[in-house]
Amino acid sequence: VSATGIDAPRTVLLAGGVGGAKMAEGLAAVLPADRLSIIGNVADDQEFHGLWVSPDIDTLTYTLAGLIDRERGWGLAGDTTNALARLAALGEPAWMTLGDQDLALHIHRTRRRAAGERASTIAADVARALSVGPAILLPTDDVVQTRVRTDEGWLSFQDYFVRLRCAPEVRALAYTGAADAKPTAEALDAIARAELIVLAPSNPLVSLAPILAIAGLRQALAGSRVPRLAVSPLIGGATVKGPADRMMTALGHEASAAGIARFYAGLIDMLAIDERDGADAEAVRAAGAEPLVLPTLMKSAEDKAALARALIAAGQARRAAA
Amino acid sequence: VSATGIDAPRTVLLAGGVGGAKMAEGLAAVLPADRLSIIGNVADDQEFHGLWVSPDIDTLTYTLAGLIDRERGWGLAGDTTNALARLAALGEPAWMTLGDQDLALHIHRTRRRAAGERASTIAADVARALSVGPAILLPTDDVVQTRVRTDEGWLSFQDYFVRLRCAPEVRALAYTGAADAKPTAEALDAIARAELIVLAPSNPLVSLAPILAIAGLRQALAGSRVPRLAVSPLIGGATVKGPADRMMTALGHEASAAGIARFYAGLIDMLAIDERDGADAEAVRAAGAEPLVLPTLMKSAEDKAALARALIAAGQARRAAA
Repeated sequence: VSATGIDAPRTVLLAGGVGGAKMAEGLAAVLPADRLSIIGNVADDQEFHGLWVSPDIDTLTYTLAGLIDRERGWGLAGDTTNALARLAALGEPAWMTLGDQDLALHIHRTRRRAAGERASTIAADVARALSVGPAILLPTDDVVQTRVRTDEGWLSFQDYFVRLRCAPEVRALAYTGAADAKPTAEALDAIARAELIVLAPSNPLVSLAPILAIAGLRQALAGSRVPRLAVSPLIGGATVKGPADRMMTALGHEASAAGIARFYAGLIDMLAIDERDGADAEAVRAAGAEPLVLPTLMKSAEDKAALARALIAAGQARRAAA
Repeated sequence: VSATGIDAPRTVLLAGGVGGAKMAEGLAAVLPADRLSIIGNVADDQEFHGLWVSPDIDTLTYTLAGLIDRERGWGLAGDTTNALARLAALGEPAWMTLGDQDLALHIHRTRRRAAGERASTIAADVARALSVGPAILLPTDDVVQTRVRTDEGWLSFQDYFVRLRCAPEVRALAYTGAADAKPTAEALDAIARAELIVLAPSNPLVSLAPILAIAGLRQALAGSRVPRLAVSPLIGGATVKGPADRMMTALGHEASAAGIARFYAGLIDMLAIDERDGADAEAVRAAGAEPLVLPTLMKSAEDKAALARALIAAGQARRAAA
């Protein structure tokens, strides 16, 4: 892939969670930085100890900055937790592991939010300070938060995901604030100028749905005329990591490639599915998406770049055919 | 000194800075915990990175908790500065050294202040969490801040003290908020119940004056009928540490034992002065305070305890004579 327009389409990636960050890395490896914009998920955001923590955006930023703790997939490599130990000694709940360097970012973000700065501006400045090339965009500057209903009542996403380790059955999801959230001009502009739109192999229900729940963004994606391609987070009918498959089943979606295609109906033209799910290709087509069968497991840097190249090639082929 | 009422008078110490913390340690070593209340200085408080930092109160708390960095006289022994390094990388000013564990306390305090809790309650809870025995009281729950006028204009105290290392000449001091600050019920109650009042060998102008600038507190001290004793921060006519002597001269006070006695006129009955300043005893008496000549340098734990014992004995002797 060269840096020319045809081979390096202006790409918008919708990404959340660790799967989103991996896809971002793959695209960042094969596209010039000014050709890639990533719209992240803010609905995992939550206040801890009075500080505004934005786990998905930070995972994206740390991953693209090369600072991520690769073992865990989140947090900064080599970070310490001395402040957290002291917070615990002061009686603060400490189940959310926030490292010392990581806390610095939350302190910085919270100060600037309190001063009235846009969340987008802060995220962009942080990405720049950490030498991230691609644009990290927020879907909205407003507060949108995923809420999870379990048999014990409604929980915040981090309560469910980190504190309770996804143990409770999910009865319902809500994206509070999404109905009234205004999309950012930057996200809308990136979609308007995109030549390829990619939905990362993130959890559809808690990583991408909160972005798609913002009406203006959903409309922009629905109305786009460029190739729109999702990557299924399922491999062999199950998620590599995380509760997406269980959650889909629990909420009445089919945990299959076809179920993913139906979930994104009207928003995608193509769905990349893993070779192990090749038998689902026709069901994906019946659900309205052109199936793209290829290796989707991203372990190494090579895996990520190869998947990114294949997606770009598929998008370019579709554009050429249109 | 035993734990009986006569030998262990209910003591109130007014303390700020490192000198105040040392005096607190001495008194804490010789008095039962329930006989000692320390009214600290909040006028060094300042917001850093959106967090409310209370250096004098924390120095007092860390010292009495046995956690203080003895070399520096402030901060926690063995603390790391990983968050601060990251804050600096994000473009935040990092001249105020805030360790990781120390930051945890500021995070905790800021969260609770934002929730509307009294500063006093937070300080008391923190002291309890760190197993501090004596009561650490705040003079006020309101914000009082020392401001320093230099030839470059008005500065916050930490700007002058830490960032500029006391280099500029001090032209004036102000204690903003003091005129309207309400004393805490706990501080007034401690003074009302005290059998001995001690003013620590702190900087009179920036450690104790901001406490004394709170009208209700000053009146309570002025009206007290129990022995009130200050310890001069000068040894051989100069301060052991810090800019008190230079500052007194610059602001028209005499940097001498007599100058200290005049500064506290109406608020003290006795002034402890170091043996090296013994020649000033009569001048101190002329200024209205009974001079108490004894070794006042506090290097070792033994020095601190010996000074504390001598002060208590002098106070008890005066009570007995009254």
